[in-house]
Amino acid sequence: MHPHVRSLRDVVLAPTEAGVLAESGADLVFLALPHGESAALAAQLPASVKVVDIGADFRLAAATDWTKYYPGDHAGTWTYGLPELPGQRERIAASSRVANTGCYAVSVVLALAPLIAAGVADPEDVVVVAASGTSGAGRSAKVHLLASEVMGSLSPYKVGAHQHVPEIKQATGATSLSMTPVLAPMPRGILATVTAKAKTAADPAEVLRQAYDGEQFVQVLPEGQWPHTASTFGSNAAHLQATVDVDSGRIIVVSAIDNLVKGAAGQAVQNANLMLGLPEGAGLTADGIAP
Amino acid sequence: MHPHVRSLRDVVLAPTEAGVLAESGADLVFLALPHGESAALAAQLPASVKVVDIGADFRLAAATDWTKYYPGDHAGTWTYGLPELPGQRERIAASSRVANTGCYAVSVVLALAPLIAAGVADPEDVVVVAASGTSGAGRSAKVHLLASEVMGSLSPYKVGAHQHVPEIKQATGATSLSMTPVLAPMPRGILATVTAKAKTAADPAEVLRQAYDGEQFVQVLPEGQWPHTASTFGSNAAHLQATVDVDSGRIIVVSAIDNLVKGAAGQAVQNANLMLGLPEGAGLTADGIAP
Amino acid sequence: MHPHVRSLRDVVLAPTEAGVLAESGADLVFLALPHGESAALAAQLPASVKVVDIGADFRLAAATDWTKYYPGDHAGTWTYGLPELPGQRERIAASSRVANTGCYAVSVVLALAPLIAAGVADPEDVVVVAASGTSGAGRSAKVHLLASEVMGSLSPYKVGAHQHVPEIKQATGATSLSMTPVLAPMPRGILATVTAKAKTAADPAEVLRQAYDGEQFVQVLPEGQWPHTASTFGSNAAHLQATVDVDSGRIIVVSAIDNLVKGAAGQAVQNANLMLGLPEGAGLTADGIAP
Amino acid sequence: MHPHVRSLRDVVLAPTEAGVLAESGADLVFLALPHGESAALAAQLPASVKVVDIGADFRLAAATDWTKYYPGDHAGTWTYGLPELPGQRERIAASSRVANTGCYAVSVVLALAPLIAAGVADPEDVVVVAASGTSGAGRSAKVHLLASEVMGSLSPYKVGAHQHVPEIKQATGATSLSMTPVLAPMPRGILATVTAKAKTAADPAEVLRQAYDGEQFVQVLPEGQWPHTASTFGSNAAHLQATVDVDSGRIIVVSAIDNLVKGAAGQAVQNANLMLGLPEGAGLTADGIAP
Repeated sequence: MHPHVRSLRDVVLAPTEAGVLAESGADLVFLALPHGESAALAAQLPASVKVVDIGADFRLAAATDWTKYYPGDHAGTWTYGLPELPGQRERIAASSRVANTGCYAVSVVLALAPLIAAGVADPEDVVVVAASGTSGAGRSAKVHLLASEVMGSLSPYKVGAHQHVPEIKQATGATSLSMTPVLAPMPRGILATVTAKAKTAADPAEVLRQAYDGEQFVQVLPEGQWPHTASTFGSNAAHLQATVDVDSGRIIVVSAIDNLVKGAAGQAVQNANLMLGLPEGAGLTADGIAP
Repeated sequence: MHPHVRSLRDVVLAPTEAGVLAESGADLVFLALPHGESAALAAQLPASVKVVDIGADFRLAAATDWTKYYPGDHAGTWTYGLPELPGQRERIAASSRVANTGCYAVSVVLALAPLIAAGVADPEDVVVVAASGTSGAGRSAKVHLLASEVMGSLSPYKVGAHQHVPEIKQATGATSLSMTPVLAPMPRGILATVTAKAKTAADPAEVLRQAYDGEQFVQVLPEGQWPHTASTFGSNAAHLQATVDVDSGRIIVVSAIDNLVKGAAGQAVQNANLMLGLPEGAGLTADGIAP
Repeated sequence: MHPHVRSLRDVVLAPTEAGVLAESGADLVFLALPHGESAALAAQLPASVKVVDIGADFRLAAATDWTKYYPGDHAGTWTYGLPELPGQRERIAASSRVANTGCYAVSVVLALAPLIAAGVADPEDVVVVAASGTSGAGRSAKVHLLASEVMGSLSPYKVGAHQHVPEIKQATGATSLSMTPVLAPMPRGILATVTAKAKTAADPAEVLRQAYDGEQFVQVLPEGQWPHTASTFGSNAAHLQATVDVDSGRIIVVSAIDNLVKGAAGQAVQNANLMLGLPEGAGLTADGIAP
Repeated sequence: MHPHVRSLRDVVLAPTEAGVLAESGADLVFLALPHGESAALAAQLPASVKVVDIGADFRLAAATDWTKYYPGDHAGTWTYGLPELPGQRERIAASSRVANTGCYAVSVVLALAPLIAAGVADPEDVVVVAASGTSGAGRSAKVHLLASEVMGSLSPYKVGAHQHVPEIKQATGATSLSMTPVLAPMPRGILATVTAKAKTAADPAEVLRQAYDGEQFVQVLPEGQWPHTASTFGSNAAHLQATVDVDSGRIIVVSAIDNLVKGAAGQAVQNANLMLGLPEGAGLTADGIAP
C-alpha cells in the first residue's frame, strides 16, 4: 500500500480499538480518526496512557463553536497542542491529553498570535487567504481531487465558513476573521496570507522575530525573503515573513508549513516529545527537501 | 521557436519600429513592449492608426501613481480597456488609443467594481490575495521561475507594494487596498480573492449577476459553484462567485481568468474588435480547455 | 458540471439510447461508451445514420485480438479512422461506420507506419514507451488517479500487456512490439518513444516528412527540434521527429499528441468531417495552447 | 539562498580550492564540479585524503568513450561507485578515489546488470527510455527549464546520443544500447524503462530479487506492484519491478530513484561511508516522502 515507507514493512497493523491499545502497553497513543470519533475511544483509555488527538474533537473551548462546524456533541477541551505559543510548551509537558492543531490553524495562529498579543495587530477584521496542497483533503477517491481536475488549477472551497475559524480566534484572540481556503496544484504545503489592521507603527517582522527567538521549528526569514512552501516540504518547520502594506497600512504576514508535518503528524510528535520528557525535536527536522 | 502555433509559420516577423508599422498599412497596432517603452513608439504612429497598448504606460490617470511603481516619466492616460465596466464599451469603441488592463487588475476590478458602485461594498480597506501562474512573469530565464523552484511550491512576491494597486483603485473607486500576489505552480491562470466590508445586507453574488447580465465573457457562476482557473484556460472568460463570510461579515468575491487571454491578449483583441466595429467576440471564445 | 464549456449551457442532455438518437434526426452519431458497449447500440441505428465509434469495439480485425484484452464477444471490424494512413482518407470518406483509433495507438501508428511501409524500419521487435497525462484514464474517482498520488510522480501500468498493441500491429504491419505505458504528472498529452531496428541507411525523419507532406494535422518538426506535448495541447496536431541512435543504430521516433483531441475527440471530428463531405479540418485547429 | 536547510545556516562556505580543502583537515572530500574539472583539483589533494567525485571525470574506462561526449582529455578511471554491483562494495571500501555514478546510469545499471550477468537478458540491442525531473538539469536559468515550459509537458532531449550510454554499457556488459531521455514535469525522480531480449525463460523479477537480497537501498517490489518515482522522493532507495512482455517476449524492467539522492548525493554519501568504514547507511534513509 505504501512502498515508500520500507522501514515500516514489518509493522503489523491492528484495528484501532481500546483493547488493542491497552494490550500494546504504549506510553502514548496518537489518535488520527475522523472528526468526532476520538472522544469515544479516548474515554476507554486508562488515565495513565497519554493521548495526542490529531482530530478536531478536543480543540475547541466552546460547545457552540463545535456544533457550528462538526457533527455530534462537543466532547470537551484538551490542552491546545501548539508549543510555540507563550506558556503552552509547559502546559503540554504537564498534560496527559493534548489536542493537536488544525493544519490551516497552525499556519495562521503562528502568524497572528504574537502580533495581537503585542497589541500591534487589531484583533478585529482579520482577513486570511490560505492555500493548501491536495494531501490536506486526505486520500479519499473524490472527483474534485483527481489529478486531471487539480493540476493547472486553483480553486477555493468552503468560502466564508471554514471550521478552523473558531480555533484560530480562540488561539489568537482575534475577534472577527474571514478565511478563504484555496486548493492548490501541489501535493503538500500551506501558504497562509494573514492581514490585520495595524494598531501601532511597530515592525511586525521584528515582533515575530522576538516572539520566536530560539525556536527550532518556527523561523522568521531574513528581511526581504518570503516563505515558499517547498522550503518546508517534509519538515516540521514554519517559515514566516511580515511587512506593512504601503497603500492600506495593513499588516501582511505570510507563513508556510508542510500541512502533513507541522500541520499534523510532525506537530503531534513534537507534542508527544514534550509530554514524554523527550527532546522536543526528537525524530523531527527543520530542514525541508527542495527542490 | 513556437512550434505550437503552426498556422503562423509563414508570418515574417519584423522589428517593432514605427517605419515598419507605418508601411504595414495596419488599421490597428497592438503594442506589447516592456513597461515605459510604448509612449515613444506610439508617438510616431499617425493618428489614423488605432493603438491598443498592452503595457502599463497609459493606464494610470495620476502621474504620481506612475512614478511610484514604474521607471521614467508618466506618458499620459488613454481610455481604459475593460469593456465590461459601465459605459466603457462605448468609450473604447469611440477611442483610437486604448490602454489594456493589467492581468491582476482585470481579475480584481471585475470582482469589485460593481459592488462599490452599488454601494454594497466599502471602498475602504479592501483586501486582495491573488495567485497567478508562471506565465504572468513572462519568458525570461530567471532562477526563481525555473520548474524545479516552482513545481510543488507557492510563494508570495512584491508583498505590500504591487504596481497594479493604483490601477485597481482608479477603476473601482476603492480608497485603500492591500494586495498580496502569489506565484502558483501552474503555467496559466489567476485566482483572485477579493474581500471588502459589507455596507448593506445585499447578496453580493446577485449584484454581480445583474452587473454582468448579458456579458459573453464575464460569468457569475450558479450558486454554490466557485471558480477554478482551469475552467478559463485558453479562453477570454472571467468566472466570478461571491458570498458573505459568516464570521466577519466581509464580502468575499473570487474571480478566475486566464492571465494570457482575458488578462492580456484576449482582452486586447476584444478592445480592438470594439475599436474597429467588429463583433466584440471575433476570434475569441468563452469556452476554456479543461481538464 | 462543466463550467468551462459555457457555449453548451443550453444543450439538453438526453440518454444515449437508440430511440433518442433516431428522433434526433442526426446525420452522424458519435458513440463514446465503455469498451464493448457500442455494438449493441450501433446495431439499433438505421444504416442511413453514419457512426463514429470512439470505443475499441470495431477497431480490431481479429476476434482473437479482441478477446485477449476486452470483455465479451468481438463485434466486428469497421473502417479504421486514421485519415493520414495511405488510402485511408478515401476509405473513411466512403464509409458509414468508422472506428476511431486508440489514443496511444494513434501516437505510435503515426510514428511507425510509414517507416515499416517504406522498408526502412524492421517490423520485428519494435519497442515503445509511451507516457500519458491523467485524462487518458477518464474521470472516475480512483485513488491512484488522485492529485496527491500523481503530482511529482511517474508510474508505469499495464506493463507488458497493453490492449492497444494488436491495434498498432494491425495498422503498422509490426510483427512484434512491446509497449510500456507510463502515467505522467500532467492533465493531457501523450509522448511516445518508438524504436525499431533500421533496415536501410535512410534518414527516418525524411521518410516521415515525405509521408506527411501536405498534412494539416501531422507535422514532422524541423531538424534538431523534438516534440513537446505542451505544443499540441488543445489541438488536433501530432508532432513527430526521428533520428538514428549512434550506439545501437536503432531508429528512434518521438511523437506528441493531445490524447483528448488527436487521440480521441478531435480525431472523431476529423473522421466525421470526411464522412460528411465537410472540410477535413472543420471545427479543428493544429495550433496548440502553450505555455 | 537555500532557506530549506536551516541546520546548515552557520556553515561558512569557502572556495573549492586545493588549499582550502587541505587546511580543512578533511578525511574525505566530495567533488561536485562541472564535468571535466575534477581532475585538476583532485591532482592537488594528498593521497591520504579520500575523494568521491560526483562528476563524470573518472567514471569511464576508455578514453574514446570520454572524448565522444565530454570536453578535454580523459582524466583516468576510478573505482565505480555503485556498491550494489557484485564485489563492488568491497572495492569501494578499499579505494581512496571513487567515481560516483551518473543519475540515469544508476537507474539503468541496477535494472539491467544482474539480468545480463545471469545470462537471462541479451546484452545486444538493449532499449532504454528514461524520464527525469527537472532538477537533473541543475539550477541554471535556461528558458527550456522554466516552469511555464515544463509544467504540463513531456519532452525528449539528447535523443540518440546520451553521455551515460558508455557508462551503462561498461557497468552492465550491454554491447549495444539506445537510450532516450525525457524531461518530465516534476522536480525530482527518474523512471527508467529498460527492455532487453530474453535469452532464457527465467522470471526476470526473481533474478533481480535474488541479486538484491539483503540490500537496504535497492528493493524489488512485490509482484504486481510497479515503481512510482514519488515513493523514492528524498530517499536513497531504488525501486525495481520486471516482467516479460506478452507480445514480443522482451524483458521489461522499470526502476525508480530520486535523481538527487541515489542518483547523486545519497550515492556519494553511501560510497563515502564505505570508504570511511562507517555503517553504509549512515545519514541515509530508504524511506521516501510521499505524497
